[in-house]
Amino acid sequence: MEKSDIGHHISQQYNEELEELRNRVLAMGGLVEKQIADAVGALYEGDIELADHVITSDYQVNAMEVNIDEECTLILARRQPAAGDLRLIVAVIKTITDLERIGDQAEKVAHMALRLADAERPKNGYLELRNMGKQVKEMLHKALDAYARLDVEAALNVAHEDLNVDSQYEAIMRQRITHMMEDPRSIARSLDVMWAARALERIGDHSRNICEYVIYLVKGKDVRHISLKQMEQTAMEED
Amino acid sequence: MEKSDIGHHISQQYNEELEELRNRVLAMGGLVEKQIADAVGALYEGDIELADHVITSDYQVNAMEVNIDEECTLILARRQPAAGDLRLIVAVIKTITDLERIGDQAEKVAHMALRLADAERPKNGYLELRNMGKQVKEMLHKALDAYARLDVEAALNVAHEDLNVDSQYEAIMRQRITHMMEDPRSIARSLDVMWAARALERIGDHSRNICEYVIYLVKGKDVRHISLKQMEQTAMEED
Repeated sequence: MEKSDIGHHISQQYNEELEELRNRVLAMGGLVEKQIADAVGALYEGDIELADHVITSDYQVNAMEVNIDEECTLILARRQPAAGDLRLIVAVIKTITDLERIGDQAEKVAHMALRLADAERPKNGYLELRNMGKQVKEMLHKALDAYARLDVEAALNVAHEDLNVDSQYEAIMRQRITHMMEDPRSIARSLDVMWAARALERIGDHSRNICEYVIYLVKGKDVRHISLKQMEQTAMEED
Repeated sequence: MEKSDIGHHISQQYNEELEELRNRVLAMGGLVEKQIADAVGALYEGDIELADHVITSDYQVNAMEVNIDEECTLILARRQPAAGDLRLIVAVIKTITDLERIGDQAEKVAHMALRLADAERPKNGYLELRNMGKQVKEMLHKALDAYARLDVEAALNVAHEDLNVDSQYEAIMRQRITHMMEDPRSIARSLDVMWAARALERIGDHSRNICEYVIYLVKGKDVRHISLKQMEQTAMEED
């Protein structure tokens, strides 16, 4: 499907509905990105107010999910979309589920930030979580960019980055286990760091999912549950 | 919506397509239930072969998700469903995402079973995980039952059970943290138990999600992201 195929209908209003839907997904994505940045910032700075703000803002993400879902059902019922438009709606329904769950993970990180704010801060100020947080936020940003531009190649690049996130996660886990064994007094704090790292790792997975929907949307091919190499081959095949 | 509203169309073939779709979701659910039982059994019995079986069977769950999704898109395109039928399709698309993720969590438990099979076994043989595993498997079973019978009351009961699962999870976490502090040599094993408990807790969440789709399907009301009490009120309102 060419980009130009989306949003070109005889009905101007239908065009506008689809365009509006895409924009709402991007707006929801923007809010979720901010939630990640704020949650990781709160952790790094030990900023309790910012952490609270993330937690109390989660309802906005949830409300956006419910509203966009409703809009999708309305368009399905009214417009009976086919082909590329139908794939767009299905991709939106799936994308917002992942965005909502990214929001939940950001909220979890904010809870960890609250708990860690009271604990003695490590010399590096949780630098490893900050790096990982920065990377998954960028992953999500690029995934949403690929979605906005219907860019399969960009989507594949983001999917690749998830490998890097996974290895950062493994490194944090190994380091923390060693740390816990050496100094059992650090167990509670280490566990919080591990849960935060786990939440960030999940954000990477959800961002990768969004990239898979971009490929489905543009190519009409389902690339979930296959290896990265197979995904590349499938995405790059001529239609 | 009355149960009898679903699958009564002039077109006999359309009826059959919707009925077949519902059956496929239930079949996928049955497989996922078995994955949970096997994963927890493998953990409890220290059965490496069974754990391997769960891990290698996950592709079946994934394949079912992809196939059912395809079928939904086909029905949307061909039949242009409205009202209750449209809600059925949207609910199916969402339900299978949760079922697939339950499958992933069962696979995680199986991985923990593999790792814990080599470790010294505790006297109680991970009884706490067995209890929790049994409960979330039953939750999923009842959620699928509520889905099959379009039973709002049953769906609400399952959503209630999730509170119990959450408190079991909290208890395991507290107990394990104490254990780790008392005996740092148990840290690696305790972490595996914690990850397994976390995976089971997530299965409870996904089962609750399925109940929310049942209420959406029958009542046409979105009950995500609200309290259990609000959910009950909304679900019990007269149409």
